[in-house]
Amino acid sequence: MITTGILLFDDVEELDFAGPWEVLTSARQDGDVVVTVAEHDRPIRSAKGLRVVPDHTFDTCPELDVLVVPGGQGTRRDDDDVLVKWLAARAERATWVTSVCTGSFLLWKAGVARGRTVTTHWAFVDTLRAKGDITVVDDRRWVVDGNLVTAAGVSAGIDMSLWLVGQLYGEEHARDVQHFIEYYPEPPFTGRR
Amino acid sequence: MITTGILLFDDVEELDFAGPWEVLTSARQDGDVVVTVAEHDRPIRSAKGLRVVPDHTFDTCPELDVLVVPGGQGTRRDDDDVLVKWLAARAERATWVTSVCTGSFLLWKAGVARGRTVTTHWAFVDTLRAKGDITVVDDRRWVVDGNLVTAAGVSAGIDMSLWLVGQLYGEEHARDVQHFIEYYPEPPFTGRR
Repeated sequence: MITTGILLFDDVEELDFAGPWEVLTSARQDGDVVVTVAEHDRPIRSAKGLRVVPDHTFDTCPELDVLVVPGGQGTRRDDDDVLVKWLAARAERATWVTSVCTGSFLLWKAGVARGRTVTTHWAFVDTLRAKGDITVVDDRRWVVDGNLVTAAGVSAGIDMSLWLVGQLYGEEHARDVQHFIEYYPEPPFTGRR
Repeated sequence: MITTGILLFDDVEELDFAGPWEVLTSARQDGDVVVTVAEHDRPIRSAKGLRVVPDHTFDTCPELDVLVVPGGQGTRRDDDDVLVKWLAARAERATWVTSVCTGSFLLWKAGVARGRTVTTHWAFVDTLRAKGDITVVDDRRWVVDGNLVTAAGVSAGIDMSLWLVGQLYGEEHARDVQHFIEYYPEPPFTGRR
C-alpha cells in the first residue's frame, strides 16, 4: 500500500500539482491513497486562481511514502517556516521525495536538496544554482538523485510522475496509465526552446 | 477582452480541466478572464477526488467567448438536465466551443456536436459513434469543425488549448505559453498506442 501526499499552498502553480495528481491517482492499486495536504484546511488559492480544498492539514496528514512538492509563485515567500519545517520532517521519512518546477526551491530550503543534483523551471536555473551547495541540471525533464526526483517546469511533472509509476508499480502499469490519460503529446508548435 | 469558462461537475476528470486551465490562464492578456463554473457553489469532487471551489454557478457566470467542457465519469449520468440545458444555451452564444475527452458526450447531449466531426477518449470512440448523427475521428489529438474544437483523452486538452491560444492570440504568444509551461514532453514510455 502506497500513500502519496501532494503539497498545496497559496500560489502553487496549477499544472505542477494537477499533472502528478492525475498520473499518480490513475496508477493507484488496492489500498493506495493519494492525498493533497496544506498547512490549513481552508481552500488554497493557486497561482492562476484555481481554489482547491486540501484533503489534510499538516497535522492530520498520514505518513507518506511519496511526497510531491509542486512549484509556483508560492514557493517564493519568506513566511513559510511552518511549511519548510513540515517538509523537512516528512521528507526524511518518505521513500521518494519529488518536486516539480520551483518546488525544488522548497526542498532546498528544507535541506533535502542540499548537496544533491536537481532540476527546476528553466527561468530559475541560475537562481537555484546561485544558492550554492546544489547541482542544477538544465537539459533534462527530470533528474534522479537517490530517492530525490526533481522535474523541470510545470508540464514536466507529468513525465516525471510516469517514470515514478514505473518505479513503484513496474513499467507495464506505467504504460497502462499513460494509455489511460492518452499521453501521446503533439504540441502544435515547437516552442522557443 | 476574452472571457473563458471551464465547466466543472462532480466526477470531472482532473487533467481534463487542469490542462486547459493552465494553458488558457497563462495566455491571458489585459482584461482576459478564465473562470470555472458549476451548477452549484459548493466544491465539486473530481473523478479522482480533487475538490475544487467553482468561481461561478450557472446563474452568476458571465457571458463566455470560449467554453471548455472537460470529460470524466461525471459525463455519464442521467440527471444532468440542468447542466445540458445551460450548456446548449451558452454554446450557442460562444465564439469557440471546446471539449476534452468525453466532454464531447455532453456536447452531443446538448445538441452542439450533432452533425459535426469530433474526437473523444480512445475508449469511448465506438460509444459516441453509435449515437449516430456525429462523425468521430480516432487518430487525432484534436479536431476542428467550424467553431467546435474537440480533443482526445485527458492530456490532449493541453495540445488543443495551445492550438486555441494560437487562434485567439497568434502563434508567437502560443509559443510563449508553451515555453512558460515547459511543454516539451518526453514520456518515459511509448505507451500502448
